[in-house]
Amino acid sequence: MATSSSDIDETEEGLGFQPKFDAAGLVTCVATDAGSGDVLMVAHMNEEAIRRTIASGEAWYYSRSRKSLWRKGETSGHVQRVVEMRIDCDQDAIWIRVEQSGAACHTGRRSCFYRKVEAGEGGARLSFVDADRLFNPKAVYRK
Amino acid sequence: MATSSSDIDETEEGLGFQPKFDAAGLVTCVATDAGSGDVLMVAHMNEEAIRRTIASGEAWYYSRSRKSLWRKGETSGHVQRVVEMRIDCDQDAIWIRVEQSGAACHTGRRSCFYRKVEAGEGGARLSFVDADRLFNPKAVYRK
Repeated sequence: MATSSSDIDETEEGLGFQPKFDAAGLVTCVATDAGSGDVLMVAHMNEEAIRRTIASGEAWYYSRSRKSLWRKGETSGHVQRVVEMRIDCDQDAIWIRVEQSGAACHTGRRSCFYRKVEAGEGGARLSFVDADRLFNPKAVYRK
Repeated sequence: MATSSSDIDETEEGLGFQPKFDAAGLVTCVATDAGSGDVLMVAHMNEEAIRRTIASGEAWYYSRSRKSLWRKGETSGHVQRVVEMRIDCDQDAIWIRVEQSGAACHTGRRSCFYRKVEAGEGGARLSFVDADRLFNPKAVYRK
């Protein structure tokens, strides 16, 4: 079915919250640090994760690898308190500004984005940046 | 094929740039304003868009709707100069900090995230925030 221009107007200019889920029922969610503005992580939410995030004020996600709903910090204690939630023009991406308790990344770093991409002679290379570990993942995630 | 723990180590702790493209050959890219830290947009890059972004220092994306490579600002003039590019732990998401010329959103707003999501009585609702238009999209995108 073709998308009419009034559908687009409603999506882009309306005040109805109508997330456009992909074929797997997910939207992309970017979490940034409410203080520094740094991107902490990029993950996915399904309808239930969005509902619980709004209701609780803490971030819930849907894990594609584990195929399950996931309260951020449920194992590590590193929860995200949501300061503000926004949605983009076409309503297929969500941005949350959060107060991150501890570290967002399962590797122990504050942010999942602890490596910089730079042009090199034989192609792009990575280098570590802001890569100090705030916790030891082996200690936190052991069963 | 199962992913071995040494593959994971290399992906998460190595310095090789090995983006993990999805079935459509894409990774998610988040662009933030290098000054304010605001998320400007969430889009996708394929291998060629990444290559051109690194080579030119300006953001290129892949448009899923138009099925084509796309230099940000090629129509509007609102280019993004890349200050820094990072990749996340599992190398399936890219974060670029950019100097945005003009506005990032095709609706004329500085950021695509110009609406806030808030809990309401009959479910979540949106409200406009930072939603001033910096340009008139009808004037910029007319042919």
